[in-house]
Amino acid sequence: MPRYALLVEYDGTPFSGWQRQADQPSVQGAIEAALAKLEKRDHTIAAAGRTDAGVHARGQVAHCDLEKDWTPFRLSEALNYHLKPAPVAIRDCALVSEDWHARFSAVERRYLYRVLVRRAPPTLEKRQVWRVPHELDIEAMREGAAHLLGHHDFTTFRSSICQAKSPVKTMDEVTLTEVEGFAGREIHIFLRARSFLHNQVRSIVGTLERVGAGAWAPVDVKHALEAKSRAACGPVCPPDGLALMGVGYPDDPFAR
Amino acid sequence: MPRYALLVEYDGTPFSGWQRQADQPSVQGAIEAALAKLEKRDHTIAAAGRTDAGVHARGQVAHCDLEKDWTPFRLSEALNYHLKPAPVAIRDCALVSEDWHARFSAVERRYLYRVLVRRAPPTLEKRQVWRVPHELDIEAMREGAAHLLGHHDFTTFRSSICQAKSPVKTMDEVTLTEVEGFAGREIHIFLRARSFLHNQVRSIVGTLERVGAGAWAPVDVKHALEAKSRAACGPVCPPDGLALMGVGYPDDPFAR
Repeated sequence: MPRYALLVEYDGTPFSGWQRQADQPSVQGAIEAALAKLEKRDHTIAAAGRTDAGVHARGQVAHCDLEKDWTPFRLSEALNYHLKPAPVAIRDCALVSEDWHARFSAVERRYLYRVLVRRAPPTLEKRQVWRVPHELDIEAMREGAAHLLGHHDFTTFRSSICQAKSPVKTMDEVTLTEVEGFAGREIHIFLRARSFLHNQVRSIVGTLERVGAGAWAPVDVKHALEAKSRAACGPVCPPDGLALMGVGYPDDPFAR
Repeated sequence: MPRYALLVEYDGTPFSGWQRQADQPSVQGAIEAALAKLEKRDHTIAAAGRTDAGVHARGQVAHCDLEKDWTPFRLSEALNYHLKPAPVAIRDCALVSEDWHARFSAVERRYLYRVLVRRAPPTLEKRQVWRVPHELDIEAMREGAAHLLGHHDFTTFRSSICQAKSPVKTMDEVTLTEVEGFAGREIHIFLRARSFLHNQVRSIVGTLERVGAGAWAPVDVKHALEAKSRAACGPVCPPDGLALMGVGYPDDPFAR
């Protein structure tokens, strides 16, 4: 059966997350239901990042197996047609080899977390930002973030229900930028690693917010990391600001 | 009674428009209801631009009269508290003189229309863009837009139910820029004038899209304008992509 890689965008708000669940809407379930309109049988697709409830994606990657040969363009058009009105879109599609795997072939995940710094509650950006109503010192946040770079035991920044075998990960990048958006000043926190632990990004961002607010010193991030204890983590921030931006593969299936 | 200028942001999607209506949700109605929580009586507020159903605002300006003296900051905080969960936010507030009027004192309105150029339907930007699934020639659109600058009879680009006394307006700016957004390539059409006719922006953008798609030549915009006939207009585009970005006053009440 030919295998297709799918580049997927979604608004995570109405979903219980990526992963299929018996009685709740999921992104995986929505795409599998659309596939069943094309080939009437059960489908099981895999994705690079199993995003949580309320977390968005701009560049999630999944793969599916079909019996029929599809041109990738026609497959993405057919899936987008059947996905309506769910806020899920196939941005691109590519034929891949049968041993290519959206999750296991991936060598990099990229996440962006958007913090909106202003007093007024967000309206148009409501689902896509975490609104913080007080000033944030971005330089202090950068200093705190620098302690997280490299190879560490991230037990502190890992959900207690995380199923990863090891809490040891390598953080390749944590970049903070200031952006003047339509709704005002935003701080964008971009994180890049081979893989992430459950709730790792939101645990890190929630901790960096404490640094930006002045409640923590930048070096406290180092102490929290070294504690290797979930209790040492700052508050986990909400899912709304988070989006999986992209996934890296040794050979990008969507590079034409 | 002290008068306050309000800088208002809203997601127009759930509203029948700015203007209060008997049985439908409106932005004006939402703010007046919040004011009634502060001073229990009927309130009538005025705004610079009476946006249509589904049209958003980033910088709408309204004014209200209150019996009590409020510090502007406390008034905006109290209104934002009572506006929840409506997607309306008071971004700023200022005390103005009693003869200042949000609508009649305004000397400039600025609108932005966002066109998303891609095949896949929008998800996270769904409410805020018009998705056009084919290529658009921005240079041709710019050439077409240039014919609209200056003092003209805009009958062609005016809704048949427009109540303005005269169809003659002066268009001070129509600027098209290409933006690489989260969802892909966007064309932003920014329009600036002292005032606009009903549906003028959406009539112009719908016409420019025809030019970008190659169905109209740029000079056809000139011919349509000169026809001074609603029938000569291109299709009116949807409200989703449109936002009132700001209003100009001889003396900006929010400049501190």
